[in-house]
Amino acid sequence: MEKEVLQSMHTLFYPRSVAVVGATDSPDRVGFNILESILYGGFKGRVFPIHPRLQTLQGLPVYPSLEEVPGPVDVAVITVNQFATVDTIAQCGRLGIKAAICVAGGYRETGEEGLRLEQRLVSVAREHGVSLVGPNTLGLISTAGDFYATFYPLKLPKGKVSLVSQSGGIGLTIMHKAADEGLGINKWVGVGNRSTLEISDYLEYLAQDEETGVIGVFLEGTEEARRLVETAARIAKTKPVVVYKAGRLNATAFAALTHTGTASGSYRMYRDIFMDQFGLFMVDSVAELVAACKALSVSALPAGGRLGVLTHTAGPSIALLDAASHREISVPPLQEATINKIKELLGENPPVVLKNPLDTVGLGFEAGIYGRLAKIVLEDPAIDLLVAIYCLHKNWRFPNQELLEAQHSCGKPVIAYYVSTWAGCHEARDILQPAGVPLYTSPEETAGAVSALVHYSNLNSNLKRRGVHAG
Amino acid sequence: MEKEVLQSMHTLFYPRSVAVVGATDSPDRVGFNILESILYGGFKGRVFPIHPRLQTLQGLPVYPSLEEVPGPVDVAVITVNQFATVDTIAQCGRLGIKAAICVAGGYRETGEEGLRLEQRLVSVAREHGVSLVGPNTLGLISTAGDFYATFYPLKLPKGKVSLVSQSGGIGLTIMHKAADEGLGINKWVGVGNRSTLEISDYLEYLAQDEETGVIGVFLEGTEEARRLVETAARIAKTKPVVVYKAGRLNATAFAALTHTGTASGSYRMYRDIFMDQFGLFMVDSVAELVAACKALSVSALPAGGRLGVLTHTAGPSIALLDAASHREISVPPLQEATINKIKELLGENPPVVLKNPLDTVGLGFEAGIYGRLAKIVLEDPAIDLLVAIYCLHKNWRFPNQELLEAQHSCGKPVIAYYVSTWAGCHEARDILQPAGVPLYTSPEETAGAVSALVHYSNLNSNLKRRGVHAG
Repeated sequence: MEKEVLQSMHTLFYPRSVAVVGATDSPDRVGFNILESILYGGFKGRVFPIHPRLQTLQGLPVYPSLEEVPGPVDVAVITVNQFATVDTIAQCGRLGIKAAICVAGGYRETGEEGLRLEQRLVSVAREHGVSLVGPNTLGLISTAGDFYATFYPLKLPKGKVSLVSQSGGIGLTIMHKAADEGLGINKWVGVGNRSTLEISDYLEYLAQDEETGVIGVFLEGTEEARRLVETAARIAKTKPVVVYKAGRLNATAFAALTHTGTASGSYRMYRDIFMDQFGLFMVDSVAELVAACKALSVSALPAGGRLGVLTHTAGPSIALLDAASHREISVPPLQEATINKIKELLGENPPVVLKNPLDTVGLGFEAGIYGRLAKIVLEDPAIDLLVAIYCLHKNWRFPNQELLEAQHSCGKPVIAYYVSTWAGCHEARDILQPAGVPLYTSPEETAGAVSALVHYSNLNSNLKRRGVHAG
Repeated sequence: MEKEVLQSMHTLFYPRSVAVVGATDSPDRVGFNILESILYGGFKGRVFPIHPRLQTLQGLPVYPSLEEVPGPVDVAVITVNQFATVDTIAQCGRLGIKAAICVAGGYRETGEEGLRLEQRLVSVAREHGVSLVGPNTLGLISTAGDFYATFYPLKLPKGKVSLVSQSGGIGLTIMHKAADEGLGINKWVGVGNRSTLEISDYLEYLAQDEETGVIGVFLEGTEEARRLVETAARIAKTKPVVVYKAGRLNATAFAALTHTGTASGSYRMYRDIFMDQFGLFMVDSVAELVAACKALSVSALPAGGRLGVLTHTAGPSIALLDAASHREISVPPLQEATINKIKELLGENPPVVLKNPLDTVGLGFEAGIYGRLAKIVLEDPAIDLLVAIYCLHKNWRFPNQELLEAQHSCGKPVIAYYVSTWAGCHEARDILQPAGVPLYTSPEETAGAVSALVHYSNLNSNLKRRGVHAG
């Protein structure tokens, strides 16, 4: 990837100054909304609204054109129509503005005429060396740069997960679920028509971005299939990549993403190839994408796939193991030393199910006992990570500190699944997740989390065995 | 099913008076919590706390024993330990109390000794004709009867969906998700050890319960497999039953639930048998269970499986069709007359994708246009139901009234999938769902909803074709 492109992408996510071309005082226009979003999002740099006649907008002085802005502009957010966008890009080029976000649609997605207009847009951008997001995009968010260039004023929790979405709509669905799950976001981009910046370009940028710990991708289909898969596979060796690939109806289209392009085989077969051959963690839903990204960004990786489960209610552990059963996970029996430690704690014939899953029945409601049992299971040398299932009960509190302590003292990952009606759950999440324990409220999403952690643990082990550096 | 059992089950869900045996003033005891839950839930009948010494509890007069309660008791909620529970059931029998909820564990789930105690409990209950929920249960909720007999004070929206859960933990996970989704609940029961009331008994009761429109079931495994499947299949002919079966790791265990008990085959194969042969709608997650129950309780059934999709963002429609692709759903092309109506509305060459899914791009943000397009697609004689995808945008409002009008004027089901960050979504849900349009915020859950509706539409058609009455 060219250094200039990388630099202009960095500028897109960390601008020091932004011009909004097409800013307006009509609250029903995108030019109004994006200016509002940028201000609401707490952007710390300078903002220059551009409008031919207005004096001020949302408290800011307005400039009649890009030329008249008194200072350098890092990013032009262009909200004018598809035709005026082309002229504005040329203007950016002349003024040395190297990065732009082009919101308007009306290009190749609308037919022949739109395609020709897009080709003009691309040639103008290339001529002047302008990198552009879109066109036809829902926008871009960089919580790291306090920069929210979208239609809707948002404020997201900061985190280590960055998302590249080929669909604005699914991108927004992901954000919605991420907010529900307390998943911190670092960067988010709706790639739009990908006229000058391809999905691979965003991946390359995020790969070297130190603020990004995990990359989530929503894919529909792309002409740059081979570069995309090779790029993602290379990145996955050092930074987890989670992929939700839609458009699976047609296995042929999916096959096109592999090296060989073999046209036979089911979606599931291709998914396995992507997992095994390319190391990418493939998911089947928005919920699983968010669950996996959360686990990979919050928790450390386990040393292997040997799962311990602690619960005081059987159903959730059964549903969890069902949902996780098709992955690289094993649920080994507890070692004798472990069982002896449990008996030391609870007596010779404790009223619990002395297996893995360890079902403590009523005893485990007490947070202190629950925490000691969590630690005992985690200390078992045959266990690499623990899922701790705890059921809401009016008399007892969630064992938050106890789980953190168990995780800390054993140095192995803990994933919490709290059976709840949300009572106390948000508070628990604010305690657990910043300290490295991701919290879920459904068995299937917990399974997705475990699967993602084990997948990247195995990938790292395989790379180490083969002498490949794993970051 | 015996008439007396049916009557005592009705009493369990609609008691006029309740005694709480083991009520206490220690806020860390179940006897305190359940009394609190009953009062917090707004129970309208008489409540008699039973305690040997206390005078009042939570504002109510306390009675030293069941014998001394001044009036008839419909249901005894028994929160004393497993041994005292057996004596209390005998007492209930002598006093003519025919229904009890037994919370305590410590029976067959703990081993030989517990099994013997449970056998005694059962024989005492049978001898006196007492129907009991549990033992070892999280409790029972009847929003229809304003009766909340659980450990945790809750207040749920009323609705038509009743749930039978073999696991208290998963039952609570379902309630949690139901609350998130605005799904109204009618009755909920954690079946516990099923000592006298089996899952089939609850199903029989809910089948004839006019307040219950849809039955959701979470199953682990059961010894009464054959009766259960036959009962559920019979009920499914007149009332939708949605089943989440866990314990799928072992396909053999699953096979045990079929007539033949054939031990070979995958989970997916058995799932298909349950769907096709028994007519049950099988789901793979808590989220899908709730999505399906919501669709079946909120929406009318479509006439068939021919799906129309209206969107202004491609990704969500692609992900939706992917997730729905393995079911009995087709996505037929729009008829010429339909395309002509769209052109009449938007001009000869409208900037939209004139296919099914109908992608309106930018045009569809205006609620009026969106509503007219929804109506045009629904009017297409080749379309049985519509998924309406609408993406949150600061300048535009959700087309709630328009979708209701389209559904009303065409008499075909509409399912809404709003791409949102929750802004406006709760309000939209409160408008749409009571008027018959279920609202979702993820493509996969929308697909689950469509699949459930189409499944029961097809089942009804098949039954009609074969001359079987479909309710």
